[in-house]
Amino acid sequence: MNAIIITIGDEILYGQTIDTNSAWLARELNSLGIDVIEIRSVSDRKDSIENALKEALDRADMVFLTGGLGPTNDDITKKTLAQFFGKNLVHNKSVEENIQKLFRQWGRKASPANLSQAEIPENATPLHNPLGTAPGMWFDINGKIVVSMPGVPHEMQAIFSNEVVPLLKKKWTLPALSHRFVMTAGMGESQIAERLQRFEKNLPENVRLAYLPSLGMVKLRLTAKGSDKAKLESLLDRLSKEVMSALPDIVYYKGDDESMSISKALGLALLKKNATLGTAESCTGGKIASDITSIPGASLYFKGSVVSYSNEIKMKVLGVKQETLEKEGAVSEETVKEMVRGAIQLLNVDYAVAVSGIAGPTGGTPDKPVGTVWTAIASKDRIKTKLLHLSGGRLQIIRLTSNLSQAILRKFILNED
Amino acid sequence: MNAIIITIGDEILYGQTIDTNSAWLARELNSLGIDVIEIRSVSDRKDSIENALKEALDRADMVFLTGGLGPTNDDITKKTLAQFFGKNLVHNKSVEENIQKLFRQWGRKASPANLSQAEIPENATPLHNPLGTAPGMWFDINGKIVVSMPGVPHEMQAIFSNEVVPLLKKKWTLPALSHRFVMTAGMGESQIAERLQRFEKNLPENVRLAYLPSLGMVKLRLTAKGSDKAKLESLLDRLSKEVMSALPDIVYYKGDDESMSISKALGLALLKKNATLGTAESCTGGKIASDITSIPGASLYFKGSVVSYSNEIKMKVLGVKQETLEKEGAVSEETVKEMVRGAIQLLNVDYAVAVSGIAGPTGGTPDKPVGTVWTAIASKDRIKTKLLHLSGGRLQIIRLTSNLSQAILRKFILNED
Repeated sequence: MNAIIITIGDEILYGQTIDTNSAWLARELNSLGIDVIEIRSVSDRKDSIENALKEALDRADMVFLTGGLGPTNDDITKKTLAQFFGKNLVHNKSVEENIQKLFRQWGRKASPANLSQAEIPENATPLHNPLGTAPGMWFDINGKIVVSMPGVPHEMQAIFSNEVVPLLKKKWTLPALSHRFVMTAGMGESQIAERLQRFEKNLPENVRLAYLPSLGMVKLRLTAKGSDKAKLESLLDRLSKEVMSALPDIVYYKGDDESMSISKALGLALLKKNATLGTAESCTGGKIASDITSIPGASLYFKGSVVSYSNEIKMKVLGVKQETLEKEGAVSEETVKEMVRGAIQLLNVDYAVAVSGIAGPTGGTPDKPVGTVWTAIASKDRIKTKLLHLSGGRLQIIRLTSNLSQAILRKFILNED
Repeated sequence: MNAIIITIGDEILYGQTIDTNSAWLARELNSLGIDVIEIRSVSDRKDSIENALKEALDRADMVFLTGGLGPTNDDITKKTLAQFFGKNLVHNKSVEENIQKLFRQWGRKASPANLSQAEIPENATPLHNPLGTAPGMWFDINGKIVVSMPGVPHEMQAIFSNEVVPLLKKKWTLPALSHRFVMTAGMGESQIAERLQRFEKNLPENVRLAYLPSLGMVKLRLTAKGSDKAKLESLLDRLSKEVMSALPDIVYYKGDDESMSISKALGLALLKKNATLGTAESCTGGKIASDITSIPGASLYFKGSVVSYSNEIKMKVLGVKQETLEKEGAVSEETVKEMVRGAIQLLNVDYAVAVSGIAGPTGGTPDKPVGTVWTAIASKDRIKTKLLHLSGGRLQIIRLTSNLSQAILRKFILNED
């Protein structure tokens, strides 16, 4: 079973709106075992819609359209669909009742433009929209399915989950699908691919491995397709263990939680040790603390941070010695050691991380070019430092530093380093 | 002149990656006067890429491809393009030099897979990638242009801005196009649209107004198209002044710098006053400091921050009274007042901002639901507090708090509040 998603609307072609609907729909369809073979954004002009729909029906079993169903003149999806299928628009009573009900809730009166939304092509099955006046529509065209939904994300999502999914399951027996994620930190996609070369060659035909890289991190996703869910699960258990044993030094998570960021994994390590954390940040300017506290419940282990952007704050708040700054410079092993010790003491935490580096674009020297970052990790009785050489623009260096230092910190806490 | 954008990669079809590249490229192309008539995401399979490219070349003057240029097996764009054009891959010396140079910077050795990225189709003009090993490629196919770029956003953006734009301007006479931006903070898109209703109705035919909303902020972009650049500029000067006078309370910038974020505008205000800044953050966990220091040169005015996530740090480091926390709670006007005064003193700064709130998902009460945020802004002799009621998820509340508190801070510094 495969599908093509078409989003309709000039605002996407102008780059004004990022098309998040397609990503959401693609995720949902994939999780139902339906392959999305193409996503397409077209202008809200009749010929563009017709052309995209025709090409999609040639190639896919299902076509999902979003957008262009509003009450204004530039919303022409419904009329275009009726003409494309050679059908008339007819008044639908249940749709009108929904529109009237919504307007009563909102304490307003439906305009003629709003009421015209109850007209749908005679071959459409209306899909109830609990949150808005534009109904979804389901068409069965010689065994192929066309679904048209409004572009407002929460309306589209409600219609898809409540109405479309049950109809899809009634129409087709969908395959079972399982996922497993292996999250890594500190190695690039190509190096990982080299280590997994033999593993990839021997993958069963029904399993796919995807590399999903972000700054300093690569998320590996194994997807297995078949008919027996239990078999798929045990296959993925075995395969993800193989991946892990090929990458023991860089894996920080293996399991089915797709949202397992390094900050979340770090939080779990701290909860496991029942320990507290603080940060002392120079070049990252609070980014590490911000990442850590983006995780719900971070207050259970994160106590606070000192962003010592100026040398004055490094000395006054964290107790870095003036002599160290003068002799070694702010970006030096000795400085981050004094910063991390100062953080442990001032913030009264079990673990702390300190970073000082040159994020650029200016401030680099031949000795310490942009991207030079010193990190120190400490507990009350251990300390570890690491020098990073990073590349990229200012934001990239800041984000990389945050991701990598959290990965080092997590290993340190779990004594895996 | 028109263009089609094609993104290549299964991760988009799985819904794992939201296609932000296309939105960025569409915006840039539109700003050059090039109409984007379609955006398409296809799988990284040979036939999908070929089919999309063929259909695009039938319909558009230019085709922009992103993705599928990595060193791993599923990156097949380059090979597919060579076959599509009936050309061989040949070794390019300047590309190899760039790869070797990057690996020297990273302190690693390029693998054979990395070096193979120096092979490009013989009809390609390589486009220098300053940030990664995959080169961009420019093809001139019977007067139509095909450009292939890596999918990593900052690499793609660097190649497009540095290499593609000059080549496009050399190849075609693009229409004169002028932009003006009006940046606002603290009001929603629909409310702004109501205030600008009459203005929009009277816009000249060659001018377009776009609303580009982000959290708490709306960027308004006026685009004028024509042949006489000077005329367009004076037209936009007049129109942007009209926008400004309709929205005097919320505009923080008017001009042609598209990248004028609130953090950048705040930095300019501090430079103007030759003043220094610090933050004291609870619920934002360092996000405000992180945003402020994302701006190059922030060290000229930003001295540091205390992230006081726990009450212990609020008391011990910032000097908030235990009595205040017990009587008023951590999320209260009195607490943020004591936090901001503590920050002014400890960080020895001219201005400080303090925030304390409930970012959720838990921690809300009937009195202080999730989204309740107290902010305080102070100089050495003035103080101002504001209570925000925000909605959305945890990250949205954190980001909104950061954006809105920076907007309030900027007004305070410039005595515009």
